[in-house]
Amino acid sequence: MEISELGEFGLIDRLAKDITTQNPTTIKGIGDDCAVLAPTEGMRTVVTTDLLVEGVHFDLTYVPLRHLGYKAVMVNLSDVFAMNAQPRQVTVSLAISSKFQVEDIEELYAGIRLACKKWAVDIVGGDTTASLTGLCISITAIGEARSEDIVLRSGAQPTDLICVSGNLGAAYMGLQLLEREKAIYNEQVEQARKSGSKEQMELLRDAQPDFSGREYILERQLKPEARGDIIAALREAGIHPTSMMDISDGLSSELLHICKQSQTGCRIYEDRLPLDYQTAAMAEELNLNVSTCALNGGEDYELLFTVPLSLNETVSALEDVRVIGYITEQEKGQALITRDGGEHQLRAQGWEALKS
Amino acid sequence: MEISELGEFGLIDRLAKDITTQNPTTIKGIGDDCAVLAPTEGMRTVVTTDLLVEGVHFDLTYVPLRHLGYKAVMVNLSDVFAMNAQPRQVTVSLAISSKFQVEDIEELYAGIRLACKKWAVDIVGGDTTASLTGLCISITAIGEARSEDIVLRSGAQPTDLICVSGNLGAAYMGLQLLEREKAIYNEQVEQARKSGSKEQMELLRDAQPDFSGREYILERQLKPEARGDIIAALREAGIHPTSMMDISDGLSSELLHICKQSQTGCRIYEDRLPLDYQTAAMAEELNLNVSTCALNGGEDYELLFTVPLSLNETVSALEDVRVIGYITEQEKGQALITRDGGEHQLRAQGWEALKS
Repeated sequence: MEISELGEFGLIDRLAKDITTQNPTTIKGIGDDCAVLAPTEGMRTVVTTDLLVEGVHFDLTYVPLRHLGYKAVMVNLSDVFAMNAQPRQVTVSLAISSKFQVEDIEELYAGIRLACKKWAVDIVGGDTTASLTGLCISITAIGEARSEDIVLRSGAQPTDLICVSGNLGAAYMGLQLLEREKAIYNEQVEQARKSGSKEQMELLRDAQPDFSGREYILERQLKPEARGDIIAALREAGIHPTSMMDISDGLSSELLHICKQSQTGCRIYEDRLPLDYQTAAMAEELNLNVSTCALNGGEDYELLFTVPLSLNETVSALEDVRVIGYITEQEKGQALITRDGGEHQLRAQGWEALKS
Repeated sequence: MEISELGEFGLIDRLAKDITTQNPTTIKGIGDDCAVLAPTEGMRTVVTTDLLVEGVHFDLTYVPLRHLGYKAVMVNLSDVFAMNAQPRQVTVSLAISSKFQVEDIEELYAGIRLACKKWAVDIVGGDTTASLTGLCISITAIGEARSEDIVLRSGAQPTDLICVSGNLGAAYMGLQLLEREKAIYNEQVEQARKSGSKEQMELLRDAQPDFSGREYILERQLKPEARGDIIAALREAGIHPTSMMDISDGLSSELLHICKQSQTGCRIYEDRLPLDYQTAAMAEELNLNVSTCALNGGEDYELLFTVPLSLNETVSALEDVRVIGYITEQEKGQALITRDGGEHQLRAQGWEALKS
């Protein structure tokens, strides 16, 4: 169905009918000039927002809309968890070009709802409008935390241990794989067109690349999970990180942010970087240095945090968390210690959409 | 300066250096994974968001970037005031194509900052990214109100008086004027090109249309003001509206929302619609029915609200507020009483970007 048949209000009505609120802090969701929330007494509110633009942040030739909706929410929840807070509400704004049908937007919303449901987050508002080109998704997430629980980027101290959750570089490898398959496919279509073979064109239409054995890196790219489980595990273990942020632009870039805001240096060890087997295999196949991918790959949505040295044993015992180095005095700089013992200045080579 | 020279972090650093926070509920603004807010004890939080897309919501051939920034904030604050709440914070996300320079974005931000300053609102976060085409602005506003002060769309009761602030249709007339001048200008350029007259082309380059006597309707279109002053006046007069919303899509459309959500009917009187002289003059010049413009024009950002009949005298004494009709039982329908006493069903003909 064409979106123009429904219009803005019709589309909103249709999307809103599947949206219910479940969080006790939500007093009123969609349907008025504003949503109304009841902050839990004595708690702080945290707010974050992300803007995803077609052709810049995602490529719909290989990203399913449902996954895109899921990811768009998760990247915001990841920021809320990175404050050591609990997400409560999101607003969802979409600019939609005429190439999309009502069913497409419903698919996108199915992913958005699924991600929200996973963390008991309510969709409380948004804006839905036309766009001249492509899709644009703007999500704002609101969360809560006790004042004393909030973790900033600025609290790291010399001798603190540097920890990361999960593993790094997998989402980037997933992206490389998808981009390679897209290039191969486009080339095959081009050849079939030149040769004028209708049969070959039809075969290509139904062709699906074989991704077996690469499911993990694809999932990391297409359907990332915000690490609320790590926040819960830290709380359970009685660990209050001294600083924390989520890894969206790459470990190097984020660690430099923590060092800058905490006015410290750091030492991390190449042989401590957590890697998945599929990440390493894909990097080798593409002739890329896997450590570089782990340091600069981006879109990991893992948590990077620091804890006092005295918590070494406790934090090391946590599942899916690894100590990768330690914080130093600022004048010692920010360094990576390579496998052969060499020392290299860390650089932010993370993905920057606005850089030429 | 090209934005690509600075990159995302460089641009954010440059914009953020002029941003300070002044609201006591803002604990931490830009610079971490989330902003941190301290809700006032016992108060509700309200949240609203708006997405503005180049070519759909604004035309940069005649909208100055500074005005655009101002308006982008005001349309959100208008929603906060429409809840009878006070705005406290905004987040600002921008998708920027390569045609913009750093100075352009600084102009846009100057307008954003000015609007925020006017209502003591803090810019606490956002996202700045690339776009393949044009500019996209997503703003989320957060406000506060005591639970008992919040006014929804759903509280109107039969016999309540229907009131509007300011006057209607002016922003729409301003838009028509700007569109007309743009069309004339484009035609002149086309003719000059055809005739090959360099002299004429140069004259046109510096040409400015004469807008004297139309300043008011232009200002209403380009630099709307959210009516926080009306909220303050209502409070001062001890008036608690039974329902309220802001007029962004046109009076008819909004009044139908209130009637639908309050399960009521309404009667409004054509001869009570508040009009400015410039609006009427422009409508006549363009051969448009001025009442239709007032009913369906959109972008007025005035407040539409209902008050109990017993407050007739108090509300009528307020400056810049006019009673235009009253709420009825639902089965009586939603009607406009024309100057000649005729009764017409109100229809939402407001602007809908997604409708074909």
